[in-house]
Amino acid sequence: MFNPKAIAIIGATPKEGKAGYSILKNLLKFKGKLYPINPKYSEIFGIKCYKSILDVDDKIDLAIIVVPNVVVPQVLEECGKKGVKYVVIISAGFSEVGNVELENKVRGILKKYNIRAIGPNCFGLINAHINLNATFSKVFPEKGNISLISQSGAVIDAILDILPLLNIGVSKVVSLGNKIDIQESDILEILKDDEETRVIGIYLESLKDKNFLKVAKEVAKKKPIIVLKAGKSEAGKRAAKSHTGALAGENELYEAIFKQCGFIITETFEEFVDALHVFSTQPEMRGNKVGIITNAGGFGVLAADASESYNLELPEFSVKEELKEVLKNANISNPLDIIGDATPERYEKVVKIVMKDKNMDGYLIILTPQEMTKPLEVAEKLVRVEKVKPLVTSFIGGVSVKGAKSFLRKHGIPSYITPENGVKALSNLYKFYKLKMREENEEEIKEILEEFLNIKEENKEEIRELIKKGDEYSIKKLLSLYNFPVPRGYIVESEEEAEEVAKKLGRVVLKALNVYHKTDVGAVIIDPEDVREAYKNLAEKFGNKILIEEYIDERGVELIFGGKRSLYPLFLVGLGGIFTEVLKDVSLAIPPVDRNYIREMLNELKGSKLLKGYRGIEVDLDYLIDLLFKLSIFFYIHDEIREIDLNPILAYKDGAKILDAKIVRGE
Amino acid sequence: MFNPKAIAIIGATPKEGKAGYSILKNLLKFKGKLYPINPKYSEIFGIKCYKSILDVDDKIDLAIIVVPNVVVPQVLEECGKKGVKYVVIISAGFSEVGNVELENKVRGILKKYNIRAIGPNCFGLINAHINLNATFSKVFPEKGNISLISQSGAVIDAILDILPLLNIGVSKVVSLGNKIDIQESDILEILKDDEETRVIGIYLESLKDKNFLKVAKEVAKKKPIIVLKAGKSEAGKRAAKSHTGALAGENELYEAIFKQCGFIITETFEEFVDALHVFSTQPEMRGNKVGIITNAGGFGVLAADASESYNLELPEFSVKEELKEVLKNANISNPLDIIGDATPERYEKVVKIVMKDKNMDGYLIILTPQEMTKPLEVAEKLVRVEKVKPLVTSFIGGVSVKGAKSFLRKHGIPSYITPENGVKALSNLYKFYKLKMREENEEEIKEILEEFLNIKEENKEEIRELIKKGDEYSIKKLLSLYNFPVPRGYIVESEEEAEEVAKKLGRVVLKALNVYHKTDVGAVIIDPEDVREAYKNLAEKFGNKILIEEYIDERGVELIFGGKRSLYPLFLVGLGGIFTEVLKDVSLAIPPVDRNYIREMLNELKGSKLLKGYRGIEVDLDYLIDLLFKLSIFFYIHDEIREIDLNPILAYKDGAKILDAKIVRGE
Repeated sequence: MFNPKAIAIIGATPKEGKAGYSILKNLLKFKGKLYPINPKYSEIFGIKCYKSILDVDDKIDLAIIVVPNVVVPQVLEECGKKGVKYVVIISAGFSEVGNVELENKVRGILKKYNIRAIGPNCFGLINAHINLNATFSKVFPEKGNISLISQSGAVIDAILDILPLLNIGVSKVVSLGNKIDIQESDILEILKDDEETRVIGIYLESLKDKNFLKVAKEVAKKKPIIVLKAGKSEAGKRAAKSHTGALAGENELYEAIFKQCGFIITETFEEFVDALHVFSTQPEMRGNKVGIITNAGGFGVLAADASESYNLELPEFSVKEELKEVLKNANISNPLDIIGDATPERYEKVVKIVMKDKNMDGYLIILTPQEMTKPLEVAEKLVRVEKVKPLVTSFIGGVSVKGAKSFLRKHGIPSYITPENGVKALSNLYKFYKLKMREENEEEIKEILEEFLNIKEENKEEIRELIKKGDEYSIKKLLSLYNFPVPRGYIVESEEEAEEVAKKLGRVVLKALNVYHKTDVGAVIIDPEDVREAYKNLAEKFGNKILIEEYIDERGVELIFGGKRSLYPLFLVGLGGIFTEVLKDVSLAIPPVDRNYIREMLNELKGSKLLKGYRGIEVDLDYLIDLLFKLSIFFYIHDEIREIDLNPILAYKDGAKILDAKIVRGE
Repeated sequence: MFNPKAIAIIGATPKEGKAGYSILKNLLKFKGKLYPINPKYSEIFGIKCYKSILDVDDKIDLAIIVVPNVVVPQVLEECGKKGVKYVVIISAGFSEVGNVELENKVRGILKKYNIRAIGPNCFGLINAHINLNATFSKVFPEKGNISLISQSGAVIDAILDILPLLNIGVSKVVSLGNKIDIQESDILEILKDDEETRVIGIYLESLKDKNFLKVAKEVAKKKPIIVLKAGKSEAGKRAAKSHTGALAGENELYEAIFKQCGFIITETFEEFVDALHVFSTQPEMRGNKVGIITNAGGFGVLAADASESYNLELPEFSVKEELKEVLKNANISNPLDIIGDATPERYEKVVKIVMKDKNMDGYLIILTPQEMTKPLEVAEKLVRVEKVKPLVTSFIGGVSVKGAKSFLRKHGIPSYITPENGVKALSNLYKFYKLKMREENEEEIKEILEEFLNIKEENKEEIRELIKKGDEYSIKKLLSLYNFPVPRGYIVESEEEAEEVAKKLGRVVLKALNVYHKTDVGAVIIDPEDVREAYKNLAEKFGNKILIEEYIDERGVELIFGGKRSLYPLFLVGLGGIFTEVLKDVSLAIPPVDRNYIREMLNELKGSKLLKGYRGIEVDLDYLIDLLFKLSIFFYIHDEIREIDLNPILAYKDGAKILDAKIVRGE
């Protein structure tokens, strides 16, 4: 797809202003063979033009389709007959404007001939390294190491317009449009081993790609993937809907996916481009310790503030003595203020020294144009210093620093418009390293997975029955098949039985079955003095089948485990009560994940302090993590459970118990 | 100070590279009289040079001092004798490098001669409207409507360098340095009625200005004040300390001040400059409803996402019919995608129509350079449309949109590098309007203030005594002098007395006096069955004086009221327990504020939902607000209380009670 020898442009035209014109123009630089197809012309730009692709007497590797939407099916039939393997359908007018029928028709033809297709309603594709630009971009991109996948053509257009200013180029670029066939994961698979791709940028509005998580996770272990997700807000989702005909999916799901894949998640277009820039030019950053050099104290302070927000550290310089020699009386701290009158030589000397500092993992060099400052000369010096670790700059200003900034960029040193942006870029650089280093314990996942699948297989009939019943008693019974800790409990149908069970259990809780919002409607009686009386009360209101469970008399912390299936199964853990209901303080993930991931999820909770011993309440954290881990595997293997809600789970000093359990069955 | 007729430059020099050279150079454009002072020269740049200011045979309105630090006292003496009213001490080498003694000496001389001084260790001052540039800036700023106050000279330098690119100019600019005399509030007072100043930007590292709050609040009612605060992080504070010799104050105090003043608080240098730009060029934005026009759906989505984050609304267009006529089949929603092939004419027509839309308060016009896009022509059209409401643009890209962006800026339309920045600028524009409209109920403050001052006066002796004692019983007694709701309580000294009091009070709580962390050490017994026994227990451990209070048997919400005096008195309100201790969920303000402000403070709490009826627990919110309001006035008038901690306050269905009370006395 990215390396065709012969390309057909179906819908090529000599009429300026049409996509078929611009694309052919851009393709003229391509070194392979070009076959314009258009029944109206016999040649375009001096190249022979064919009535139909079937008339071409050559093997066609890739067809670019820019005909009106209604003609697309016919053209695809011809591609199929010709044996074309890859097509890019630029043409719009499909599901994005409600024309689902036409899109389905196209899908059928693609299947019939086994054609792989990008689009429709897309911007095309680029492989800059072979001068292949099958898009209608205004700017012809330079060769470089950034690859881009985007749902929006205009976003790519804008990036291609910006990149020359940053002096960086691209490798593969593809706009996926309505994603009728080829999805993000297909492209990621290709980019994974593409030697010309060092960093991947994805602009995304919605996913319908079941393979995404698996593939993206693998690729992100090798190469940084920067993601910009649009459609987070309600208003944004509305806009996304009318834009690409795809419902923007739930935020929480996307966030969980991106986090789990190890993506660099960016919040704004600016951060997205800044991140591409730093990954395109800088080496790996292997720690979070940054040295900041500035000729303006104020901006040093702002950079220090930003460092703290982005979890970077500013340790003391270990090369203090050498720095003192250069800076004489100056106060050697980090940020290091080399003062307003800093000369290019001072910058050079200082940067050379700090480059050898073992304390530091990366550097930010700040410059403001002051009276004595020579920005371009500083830039020239910086370019010449041997750099062994990441180094970014922020030359702040306008007129005076323009030339210096473009000089730096020309030599592969990012220059950000503010120190905060520079710090953010470094923090992203480090984040990738940290995520890459994260190791998943596949063994422990596999072990429990196998164990649980066995249990599931051995108890197939019973499990089906219990899920079908779906009441609290049955779900807890289901859970206990997997040895999950639930309170001992029995269904009783009379006062006598209730009393008998209570004798066996000690202090008890009585609950009506099959009642929603049990606590709110008074269907739960906790630790009654007179069990018969309690039974009678509940039975009168809610029927004679009453669940009696042992009362768990432990001081502990309440948690929630929830799960929901949509594009992927998604589970959440959180602290119960106020934390979930008022603060929405939950962490989400797609199973399976390992125990360590669960630990991190708990750590990310705002209320995580409660789990570490608060006001004398202790929790067995390892036990709790193990429990949540196994619950996530349990949810993972039970496709037939659409939603699950274990709330509360009471975690205490020497264990935990699942006190309430609800599920919603799948179709 | 900003409008001198004659200026002396003490330390002027013809030696390039010295501050005394650059400043004199910049001053050459000044239309008034210039008197260089330097014993070494008889003339500089063809202007007569004097040995001493005392030799000048003219009235000097302003002296700029650029001599070495040790010479400053002598020079100031001469200024004093000469009768100079204003000096700007550029010279460095004072408290910022630990030379506090020299700074104190200077302070003494200023006092002696009643001279007002800016600096030392500063960048100087500018009044662009009379070509007065008494700084060593590289760029000579254009005349404009932005005034700047900065603790850092380099930050001003950088802004002056950027402004020409944005095509905006400045009015008054001043760098305050070590702030030995003139503080932010002095400058704000001047700028308040300065007709050449439309927007004020403040870069701040620390405040030592007692008048700041009062003055700034007044000024911010008339003109937008944009603030960038550096030194928020621990690392930043360290850097700030070594930078200006001033301890960066507590974040929380600053945030409370800025919020209360009605400032536009910006988080990064970029946002700071963006905000200056929008306020410098755009009219008032009187609501939060924004219409977004874009030729790229993807960026429309990103803008919509940003709008939600910044609390802007994107309502439907009310001029749908007219828009439909222009856009034919297009889907008329907001953001309005006028599609990739949008011509300048389409932009023009659409913007003209939406300008008449009564639903909208402001506009963001997005453009990306696509195949057919003509950025410069679009810019030309936009400039010509009659604009009655704020309009900002984001022309996204690099090479293709450069010219269009500078054209827009030349004509007073901001063009931001990303749609997110544009949305943020609009949200700041609206925020100013909202803050300006906020009315403080001075009457209700005055009423309680007077009432409380009377109480204070009438009970002077008793109050002094109670504060001196400072135990819980005394503080509650103090509070009850002001009719604050505290549980009825008595000090008892024997089992018999305890029993007697309990008979009177019903259910009771017993507390030891003068014990810290009472609950933790077991010095509190709540609702005991046997009061004598309870008394005995406590008395044995903590002494025979025990406080017995009525037990408040109400389901409610626990709150905290705290207060602390530093530069200003500062009080906080928050939800008690986990919310304060784990989540640090508190709101802060400087008293006095009105009831409405307290209401907003409560609304801003993450857990505010709890106060609005959660799980059947109701709170009398008006009562609670009144209570907190009066407590803040109480704290305000009691200078002798350095810290106060009322925690918990139990708020319930029909009232509230202050259950525990601690204070720390002032010196």
